[in-house]
Amino acid sequence: MKRILTGDRTTGKLHIGHYVGSLQNRVKLQDQYETFILLADIQALTTHFENPKLINASIYDVAIDNLSVGLNPEKVTFVQQSLIPSIAELTVFYSMLTTVNSLRHNPTIKTEMLQYGFKDVTYGFLGYPVSQAADITFCGADLVPVGEDQLPHLEQARKLVRRFNALYMDEHMGIKEPVALLSDVPRLMGLDGNSKMGKSLGNAIYLSDTEDEVRRKIRKAVTDTNRISIADKGNPEKCVVATYHKIFTQDQYDNICEMCRSAQIGCSACKNVLITSIDELLTPMREKRRYYESHLNLVKEIILDGSSKANKIGNETVAKVKNAMHLSL
Amino acid sequence: MKRILTGDRTTGKLHIGHYVGSLQNRVKLQDQYETFILLADIQALTTHFENPKLINASIYDVAIDNLSVGLNPEKVTFVQQSLIPSIAELTVFYSMLTTVNSLRHNPTIKTEMLQYGFKDVTYGFLGYPVSQAADITFCGADLVPVGEDQLPHLEQARKLVRRFNALYMDEHMGIKEPVALLSDVPRLMGLDGNSKMGKSLGNAIYLSDTEDEVRRKIRKAVTDTNRISIADKGNPEKCVVATYHKIFTQDQYDNICEMCRSAQIGCSACKNVLITSIDELLTPMREKRRYYESHLNLVKEIILDGSSKANKIGNETVAKVKNAMHLSL
Ligand code: SF4
Ligand code: SF4
Repeated sequence: MKRILTGDRTTGKLHIGHYVGSLQNRVKLQDQYETFILLADIQALTTHFENPKLINASIYDVAIDNLSVGLNPEKVTFVQQSLIPSIAELTVFYSMLTTVNSLRHNPTIKTEMLQYGFKDVTYGFLGYPVSQAADITFCGADLVPVGEDQLPHLEQARKLVRRFNALYMDEHMGIKEPVALLSDVPRLMGLDGNSKMGKSLGNAIYLSDTEDEVRRKIRKAVTDTNRISIADKGNPEKCVVATYHKIFTQDQYDNICEMCRSAQIGCSACKNVLITSIDELLTPMREKRRYYESHLNLVKEIILDGSSKANKIGNETVAKVKNAMHLSL
Repeated sequence: MKRILTGDRTTGKLHIGHYVGSLQNRVKLQDQYETFILLADIQALTTHFENPKLINASIYDVAIDNLSVGLNPEKVTFVQQSLIPSIAELTVFYSMLTTVNSLRHNPTIKTEMLQYGFKDVTYGFLGYPVSQAADITFCGADLVPVGEDQLPHLEQARKLVRRFNALYMDEHMGIKEPVALLSDVPRLMGLDGNSKMGKSLGNAIYLSDTEDEVRRKIRKAVTDTNRISIADKGNPEKCVVATYHKIFTQDQYDNICEMCRSAQIGCSACKNVLITSIDELLTPMREKRRYYESHLNLVKEIILDGSSKANKIGNETVAKVKNAMHLSL
């Protein structure tokens, strides 16, 4: 079985945008690949170092989010990044093989710098692609499921691995060059029409939201603003709720659009359909969530056991790397 | 006993410039402080990543250089940097608390960039001060023996520690803020008058040089170029050999200068005096060196034992740090 490395930054609970964009796919992949899920608390520090308590709480939250959507702890390996010293060691090795300029010109870094508004970027933040190369290679991942926007990071990681292999691996087995498993995932916008979703924006449905919260949030969602009375014909192309239906009420999507355009359905009824769709998705997750939330020690064990397994693999990788670099006495 | 952290990059054998500039002082300090000597093979990578075999050979060479000048393996702890994952882990943590700009403006980094001629600096090279902060703090060093030129690095390390403590150590014991143990060490120039000494310049006497090599090198040393015949009066102020006498033939230094100025001694005889002085210094070292060179397994054991002791301390530091950063489950 080929190995994949995926994961989430532990900077807060996951929302249905994460589900649509990666968790959903991850659930399918667990049967085809040996899956490592990184709970990226060190990566979280690059942007949230001033909020360590959030990062800590999010380690559990993100693990439970993953478990609740159907990732099977008997199949996948959960890994707490800060428990894996070999990732830090590889980061340091790789940092010798990357120029500051190539990092500055990484498009993802540029975008994220704009997004987070960092004028004076930290050394750790700039090194994100280096650290990601370490995340991927410590466990010898064959494949990395990525969206289009993460491709530049992966390309930089691949370049690093090739450079490392060319420099040191003449007589040795090389480090595995990871390949992108590009998935064409829909991007979900916020309920307010903002392309970004987040807690501070209050425009996201979380996997851990109750039925009440889901209902309340969807009722406030932005619809076609030109449709004022129920008698007005609507335009689903200009409606956020419709973009949600396209994903969460797929089988009725064409029908709903048709009814909207001909004013056969009101926005309130249309939203109720969406509330039902999303609750149908979340209900089985809620059951799993309840189980894990009342068995936090089990979650802890899943993370610690997975990290311990990952540590063995990571230490073997570092031993191989050090050997190739002639650092062994 | 307070603890000091000192060490050498493993980028080649040490020369008498290193002895005068730090080893000599180190030998004295071992009786007053618990001394950790870092064999900095990771730091060596920042400039020599393309020459890993040199780095490997230098781990032994530098350890033996230190042992031969009188550092007592029963008192001091030798630490191979790449054997200490906690240093890499601390480097990653600290990298979140340092801005790229502050590293770019570090005067030592600026100077070294000029010195090594790096146009397009690597990420690892730029991070030298971050990594040095990790070197110093992993073992909770109280003091760091430094020359004037290394002060900016230490200052950046101290700033980092203060920032870390302010951010995370509210309810915990802080990381120890290291203090400079500034030693007013003479700087030795190369035998050719170059302010830099090095193997490629062929202008340095190595601690491992034989009597023949010492003699040959000193005979080629640059003297007062205005003194052409033995009858010419010399000017020790303009003579490299005189600067060596000042350090290695201290008790006769004034006398030699006087004889030079009055043409009572020829350069050849003057150099013979220096050859004798340096051999007197090196002879006891050569004996120790022969012992360790014929007991390489013992050297290896000294390094591995020391590194293992250091690892325990480093892992405790990281545990404390992770605890303060709320990264423990
Ligand atoms: S009926 Fe539905 S799709 Fe049409 S505007 Fe209202 S909420 Fe949007
Ligand atoms: S006599 Fe000695 S000090 Fe004077 S110029 Fe010659 S080598 Fe130098």
